[in-house]
Amino acid sequence: MAARFFSLFVFPLVFCALILLALSIPSFSSPVHLSSPQFLGKFSRRPTSSNKLPVKRYRYDVRYFDQRLDHFSFSDDDPRFRQRYLFSSDHWTGPDRMGPIFLYCGNEGDIAWFAENTGFVWEIAPKFGAMVLFPEHRYYGESMPYGSREEAYKNSTTLKYLSAEQALADFAVLVTDLKRNLSAQACPVVLFGGSYGGMLAAWMRLKYPHIAVGALASSAPILQFEDIVPPETFYDLVSNDFKRESTNCFDTIKNSWDVLVSESLKENGLSALTKTFGLCRELRNAQDLVDWLSSAYSYLAMVDYPYPSNFLMPLPGHPIREVCNKIDNASDGSTILERIFEGVSLYYNYTGDVSCFELDDDPHGMSGWDWQACTEMVMPMSSSQVGSMFSPYNFNLSSYEEGCRQSFGVSPRPRWITTEFGGHDIKMTLKMFGSNMIFSNGLLDPWSGGSVLQNISDSVVALVTDEGAHHIDLRAATPEDPAWLVEQRATEVRLIEGWLNNYQAKRLISDM
Amino acid sequence: MAARFFSLFVFPLVFCALILLALSIPSFSSPVHLSSPQFLGKFSRRPTSSNKLPVKRYRYDVRYFDQRLDHFSFSDDDPRFRQRYLFSSDHWTGPDRMGPIFLYCGNEGDIAWFAENTGFVWEIAPKFGAMVLFPEHRYYGESMPYGSREEAYKNSTTLKYLSAEQALADFAVLVTDLKRNLSAQACPVVLFGGSYGGMLAAWMRLKYPHIAVGALASSAPILQFEDIVPPETFYDLVSNDFKRESTNCFDTIKNSWDVLVSESLKENGLSALTKTFGLCRELRNAQDLVDWLSSAYSYLAMVDYPYPSNFLMPLPGHPIREVCNKIDNASDGSTILERIFEGVSLYYNYTGDVSCFELDDDPHGMSGWDWQACTEMVMPMSSSQVGSMFSPYNFNLSSYEEGCRQSFGVSPRPRWITTEFGGHDIKMTLKMFGSNMIFSNGLLDPWSGGSVLQNISDSVVALVTDEGAHHIDLRAATPEDPAWLVEQRATEVRLIEGWLNNYQAKRLISDM
Repeated sequence: MAARFFSLFVFPLVFCALILLALSIPSFSSPVHLSSPQFLGKFSRRPTSSNKLPVKRYRYDVRYFDQRLDHFSFSDDDPRFRQRYLFSSDHWTGPDRMGPIFLYCGNEGDIAWFAENTGFVWEIAPKFGAMVLFPEHRYYGESMPYGSREEAYKNSTTLKYLSAEQALADFAVLVTDLKRNLSAQACPVVLFGGSYGGMLAAWMRLKYPHIAVGALASSAPILQFEDIVPPETFYDLVSNDFKRESTNCFDTIKNSWDVLVSESLKENGLSALTKTFGLCRELRNAQDLVDWLSSAYSYLAMVDYPYPSNFLMPLPGHPIREVCNKIDNASDGSTILERIFEGVSLYYNYTGDVSCFELDDDPHGMSGWDWQACTEMVMPMSSSQVGSMFSPYNFNLSSYEEGCRQSFGVSPRPRWITTEFGGHDIKMTLKMFGSNMIFSNGLLDPWSGGSVLQNISDSVVALVTDEGAHHIDLRAATPEDPAWLVEQRATEVRLIEGWLNNYQAKRLISDM
Repeated sequence: MAARFFSLFVFPLVFCALILLALSIPSFSSPVHLSSPQFLGKFSRRPTSSNKLPVKRYRYDVRYFDQRLDHFSFSDDDPRFRQRYLFSSDHWTGPDRMGPIFLYCGNEGDIAWFAENTGFVWEIAPKFGAMVLFPEHRYYGESMPYGSREEAYKNSTTLKYLSAEQALADFAVLVTDLKRNLSAQACPVVLFGGSYGGMLAAWMRLKYPHIAVGALASSAPILQFEDIVPPETFYDLVSNDFKRESTNCFDTIKNSWDVLVSESLKENGLSALTKTFGLCRELRNAQDLVDWLSSAYSYLAMVDYPYPSNFLMPLPGHPIREVCNKIDNASDGSTILERIFEGVSLYYNYTGDVSCFELDDDPHGMSGWDWQACTEMVMPMSSSQVGSMFSPYNFNLSSYEEGCRQSFGVSPRPRWITTEFGGHDIKMTLKMFGSNMIFSNGLLDPWSGGSVLQNISDSVVALVTDEGAHHIDLRAATPEDPAWLVEQRATEVRLIEGWLNNYQAKRLISDM
């Protein structure tokens, strides 16, 4: 039997049955296990007091568009919902000059938060005379069907329309309607997106080429499905990010899990762990702590930016280096778990404002991404024996499916994404049928392993940076930007210019 | 107010309210009106004793595939259905030799009937060493959800999943699964389709380029939506087919409608018309007779083949010429309606077996195409003052929508098809994003006006024949085939060979 170890991220309902099952096995080697990581985890939820939006930096109107909940079947009885979108025509040159429309494909969170963290689009819009649109993804932020998040997330009957296909159709209907109302049918649309939003941008370019002339898909792991990339990819990449900073740090983390589990099984072990990790509430089981730590490591790999940032959390530049410094340089005599706590505190408490830690703000909330992962976004993830600092775990589809059925009453469709959007033979498919696409990736980002890392053709281009992390290119420019990042963004601007010039030239010819 | 005239085809439930409305207007000029023509009309239904399948000419297995009814939302509660498909691997060279898979996109009718009428695919399969697949379109033939046609067609709740998008996903899931089971993932799929099936083939090539390497879309009016082509196109083309044979014939038909309506309003007028047209049952209103006649003219234009055929009805070669001969050369002293009857008898009773005519076999049946026309397949059709031999009619979207709501309780989405599949700017879209597509059309076919009639690029090709009718190229070869048809089919074979050679060459390179 494969060992089941160390659950990662906030997937609590899905796997509680498995946890109980695992805990019932009389063995110390598999009390906890690993599940699929999320892009944003709890950050995908509506901002709460503990996760406020930053100060609004960009000027836009907030608008709403009446959408049908189900684009692909036909019934007047189906409900509708208000899709929120952010709109700015401040710099748009308008229909007569074929001013482009920059459309960011909203992903699994509040769209205002994405807008604030996608400075690149705002910064280049004036140069292009572009309109800027940030439509929100259905079932996130304010774009809730059934009147409220509570109602929308009630059960599988209300959640069933939360899917990438429906979201793409939302974008298509919205922008088509908007263009018609502005007599802007000839204005080219350029898609942007990061992470899941980048996947949406890439897929929308493939599925709706009549609507968008090109797509910048940043950190978009469109190949993280079925057997296209090895399932160990993600955790190996996270682990490499730590190992490159310090082998000792990597080893400490790798060794910490067994220690943690052993401690938890001692008399008053959970109380001791509660104290060691400064938790606000008595720890109920080792799994919760493992989730909390594992999440931090994976998120750290995603946001391992070379300058201070505040995307998921306020962090210094090169945060993994800093975390490893803490772990490696903890005061003499520190136990391994004390070192781990020193390290993870940098992630969860860099500002020093936190007096005690809540392991999960909302233990009963179902996150939208959990639903998506339990339906179409089935990304097999394993933790390898050697390359991973997480404990070994082999992805098991049957357990995954059973967890989804128990949690949501829904069966995953692990093969649907590649049927609908492709994925196998991606090089050939993109070479023969794709054009005007940029896949940008930073190799520090663990999601890069599931993305497109090689140039496919003249117009399907991979921009890969050794020191980049999760869609760093989409972030606002800063004075600390390294030269490679400045250059990457300049290349992106040049490629987008090329798409638009080509479009406008062809358009003028076809109008003659 | 626009005059409402002469309803065409079998759209009885949708428009009965409109008819009553029109009849309530105290004017003789608009007692009947025109609605959207269907591709197949009553022939789309399950074969009955009066519309038997021809003798089975091709060898295939009949198989069934378990499909989900809703591909685009996620619920374990949604029903599934058995999709029928015809399968032949008699000539398939198999996975090792990358033997191609010829997939005919089933359209609005019994798939066995399409298979019998698509001889071209069967005839060229041996040359290509191809597998042949004819999947049936959901809600037609035997591929009924909810256990029976009666249940499936019960109301808008059961019909809601009858859509082109769902049908394309059926094809995609079926062929992907089949290929996996046969270890034939590398085998290229070529799509074929005629009429609505041709539209599906073209759209599938655009939406699922990772699944199919090319598409032969015969008589596929993908531009017959919104304002892309003038709404008069269809009826003008039908009318031209008659005018080119005989101006007198055209004029006789054009003048017949007023006479027919006047007759119907006389005392015992309906009885007299019943007798003149040899009807089995007493005529209830002029509209039914107008529908019956109008259907015949449009179907005649579709099947105006140069040799005897039995697609919709047994007919001689050049049937419009024959009909016009009857109309023009009726015995001296014949009234205009007697001439019309002589003409239409050639269509409805060429074999002479019919002793009296039933205007509609199934006056209460809802046809699947009616549903599709009332949801996404909204094709605006008008009858022009000058060019049409039908009475003038201006398409009115509001009336159309109202009719659909009354008939099916559903509101049409007239802009959805162009949003989902494109259509505006089609030349530019296909030039930039399409490849390996053939749009074949015969200019006698009234659906040709809504199709692609110009070459778009080296690999998106229009094959247009002056003397061709509705997807004649897909029919089996006959000894009477004119040279242009033989040549057209040879060109199609050459183009398909090119796609496959190109695919196999690229595939071999990418495997190296």
